Parts: sequence; structure tokens; C-alpha cells
Amino acid sequence: MNPGFTGSLLDRADDARHDEAMVRAMRSDPEALLLEMSGLHPVGAEQGALGWTPLRYTEVRTELALLGRLDGTPRFVALERGVSAFRRSPELFAAITAMSAEDAGTYATARSLVDWHSRHGFCANCGAETMVFRAGWGRSCPACGTDHFPRVDPVVIMLAQHGEGADAKVLVGRQPAFPPGRYSALAGFLEPGESIEEAVARELKEEAGVSVHSVRYLASQPWPFPSQLMIACVGMTDDDALSIDYTELEEAKWVSRDGIRAALAGEADAPFLPPPAYAIAHTLLSRWVAEA
Amino acid sequence: MNPGFTGSLLDRADDARHDEAMVRAMRSDPEALLLEMSGLHPVGAEQGALGWTPLRYTEVRTELALLGRLDGTPRFVALERGVSAFRRSPELFAAITAMSAEDAGTYATARSLVDWHSRHGFCANCGAETMVFRAGWGRSCPACGTDHFPRVDPVVIMLAQHGEGADAKVLVGRQPAFPPGRYSALAGFLEPGESIEEAVARELKEEAGVSVHSVRYLASQPWPFPSQLMIACVGMTDDDALSIDYTELEEAKWVSRDGIRAALAGEADAPFLPPPAYAIAHTLLSRWVAEA
Repeated sequence: MNPGFTGSLLDRADDARHDEAMVRAMRSDPEALLLEMSGLHPVGAEQGALGWTPLRYTEVRTELALLGRLDGTPRFVALERGVSAFRRSPELFAAITAMSAEDAGTYATARSLVDWHSRHGFCANCGAETMVFRAGWGRSCPACGTDHFPRVDPVVIMLAQHGEGADAKVLVGRQPAFPPGRYSALAGFLEPGESIEEAVARELKEEAGVSVHSVRYLASQPWPFPSQLMIACVGMTDDDALSIDYTELEEAKWVSRDGIRAALAGEADAPFLPPPAYAIAHTLLSRWVAEA
Repeated sequence: MNPGFTGSLLDRADDARHDEAMVRAMRSDPEALLLEMSGLHPVGAEQGALGWTPLRYTEVRTELALLGRLDGTPRFVALERGVSAFRRSPELFAAITAMSAEDAGTYATARSLVDWHSRHGFCANCGAETMVFRAGWGRSCPACGTDHFPRVDPVVIMLAQHGEGADAKVLVGRQPAFPPGRYSALAGFLEPGESIEEAVARELKEEAGVSVHSVRYLASQPWPFPSQLMIACVGMTDDDALSIDYTELEEAKWVSRDGIRAALAGEADAPFLPPPAYAIAHTLLSRWVAEA
């Protein structure tokens, strides 16, 4: 299975972003569609698909961003200021579960873009108000000339693995905010000056006291809360002693391949409840099980 | 060989960043050292190592960021406003070549951090002046309360591969600004809503008209100009026809494994001059050659 939020069929139409005449023509195309959003919520998506309204029937009071082309028609999203930035409701996750992975990927792109504009109306370099440019894929400062582009924050999410073959086990942990019984892979933001492999080793050391080597990459996904790149890896450790940072984790434990398989299958006696299918932690655990 | 800018021996001391008393104690430690920088340039590094001055001998007129601990002593760097943000001189690259990879990694961390602060003194959310917090690993807005953290921008850098075994060849390209004869892997910024694999496919399609599948990850490195995470991959293509975007590339061509090997070895009749050893493109080409 592909990671959640991947597989969008959107053609991002990078060529058009640099060509104002082309963007104007796409906006006035009678087939152009606007993504139906209420703030950051995909309106109607709990029915199983994103909603789109013909742009020509819409009174647009805000800036628009060009998402690209889909099924041959131009697609836009409205850039609202002051949308509530970080609300993740149960209704939203129900909608994401109901959507196809392709639609979830298109939504992820739109959501991250709308959210970034809503919280980046001013120039970090000089404090002046900035203006949308490149068809919504950046903001430019009229005062100092600095161009700003949407952030994507890389996050490493990983399993420490101890042992090989039938003896192999991996480390899963839970945060206090997780639903009861849920465990997942450990994760953290990659910092300036780090490679992926270094960030994986640092985070496992900081959060669980585990030293890993031979880090291998397994999968990636975008995570639009607000705009992360999730990078899923496994690192090998020779020592399964734990020293848990309880400011980050409520608990962490080693689970065998059979235990991970049982958790993913939702078996009643599984050692934990798995992360949801649209989260890369689910993909990571699935791919680790499949490696054997 | 490890990728350039990796292997720093710095302990980032994440625990201290959240503890002001611990940071104060580290600042007044008589063994504490300050990285010698002139703007963004590592002073004296052309001699082969980073320069460090005892903090107690230094009149500090600016904010400091805590880099962490190295060889048991606290390490800091001064946060200057208005450093010239994007100057990459031949002297700098000579210094990076002379440094150990470990020192280059420490420098990369310091440079990205100093550069970020120098260009992010104002709140993107409200325009007010922000203040350093978390021992230099963030800025906080006293007006609206938003916290800001240093950016790391993920960039995919990749080879398209056509054919297998002895028939295998990969795509390298050159930008107009490259030194004469230099070719490298194609690259581009990952965008909101994309996985690594999707960004690789999009960039190769946009820049060279090549469609790839079965993308595999090979290596990563930090690239501190100003603060990228370079993610190096190979994607397979079934069609070697090119459609080059000449606004991005001056030229692109397919090169066999023998040709890549000759380029990396610096042979006189090699088909191109390779990227420098500290660039991930060099690592990527080396690892691709080693796969056979």
C-alpha cells in the first residue's frame, strides 16, 4: 500500500506559475474549478471525495492559489487570512479516511498552502506586509524585496530494531495525547546541519536512550498539519536497554515481528493499537513486517 | 565515503535548550568556546580546522546560540544581524575542502542557524520584532505569541536510470553557472503535499521530460546555503528521450557506468567533470557506481 496523502493526480503546472498571462487564462477558463474549503476543512469530503465548484459561479473575495491541472481542468484554492491554523477535528480525520489517497494528497497540498499564507502575511526580514506572487506559491516583500516560499519541515519517524530474523524486535512508543492503547514509531523534527541518518540517531538517543547505526530509509509522505515531510527509517541497535525521556513519551516498548503483525491486523490480543492507515507510521510498520 | 557535512561530533544538548539555568551555567563555564566566524565565514578554517576562542576572553555584544557540547565543553556561536546572507566565495569552498567532514558538519549547523536569525528578525504572522529563545534555536513574538523555528528546506537530487547491468546509464545535467565541463545530478525543492518519490518524479519530468518509477533512496546531507536537506535518489525510466527545460538546464546527457566511474576518477577522457566531493551529487554518483 502506498503511504497516505500520496498519489495525487494533480499536475502542479509549474510552467504556469511563472507566467501571469497563463494564470489569467486558466482563471477565466469556463471549466476552472475551486476547491470547496471552509477554513482548512474540506467541505463535503466525508462523502468520500473532495468538493469542487465551478470558479465562474463563485464570487471570489480573496487571493487564489493555482493548485494545477486535474482531469484537464485548472484547479484553484482560495487563500484566506486568519483561518484557524491548527485545528484537527475528529470530523477531519473521518473525512481523510473516507477520501481516496489521491484526493487526500490533493487536499494535503491545498491545506498546507492555505495554512502557510494564513500565518505568513508579513516579511520575516523586515516586518512589512507581503504580497502573493507566483500564482500563490510564494509571497514577496514590496519593502525589502525578499521572496518567501512555503515551508516544508522534514521530520524523521523511525523504528530502532534489535536482533535479526525471528529474534528481531522494534521500539514503539506512545505520547500522552494518543488514544488509549495506541503506540507508534518515534519521531522528531530534523534540524539545520543534520542528515536524515543523523537526525534518526539523535532522536532515538534523546527520546529513548537507544544508539543506532546502519539507518535505512523505507518510505516518505507529506503530513499537512501544517506542512511536514515525514521520512520513515529503521536503525539497528546492539543494546535494547531503554532510558525514556518522559517529557516526550509516556511509554515505549519493544515488540516482535509477530506482535507488529498482530497490531496491524487489529487482532484482539495484539500488544498495541496501531496508528491509522493514512499515517506513515502505519506504512513503516507494514514495510518492516514485509522485509522479513 | 560519508556524505559531505555529515559526521559532526557535536552533542546538540537539546536538554539544555529548554533550561535557562543550564544555558547560563554553560555560558559561564570557563571552558566554554565561541566559534570564530566573520559574518558567515569560518575564520581560519582554510588551515584545516574550525577556530574556537574561549568565551571568557570575548566581549560578546550580540545574542549567542548554543551549538551544544564538543569534547566535553560547551560551544556557542554569535548571532549577528545583517550578515550578508548568501555569499559563497571560492575561499569558503577552499576552506570546506580543507576541513574534516566532522568540522564541516559543525560549521553547517552554525552557518544555517546564524543565517536564519539574520534574515528572520520579524514575525511572519504579525510583523512585530521577534526575540531569540531556546538558547538560539528559535525566535518568539512578544506581540502575538507565535514561535518560529529555523527552516530546513528539503531538496530532492536525483539520477534517472535507463537500462540495467552493463546497459545502464544515468542522466546528468549542467546549469549555466557551473564551471566549464561540470555536470551533476538534477535537483529541485520538494513542495508542500509531496512525498520524496513524487518530488523526484515531478522534477525529472519538469526539467528533462523523463518519467520515472521505482524511485530508491541512496543518501542525504545538510547543505548550508542557506539550509537545505539534500535527499539523493535514483528513479528508473523506460524511455531515454529528453525534453530539456532550458530555463533550468543548459544541457543534459546520458552517461554509462564506465563514464561515471571515469568522471569520479578524474580521468582525462572522462565525459564530464564531477561535482566536488563535499556535494551529495558526488556521493550519489559514487553509490550508484558501487551498486553494480
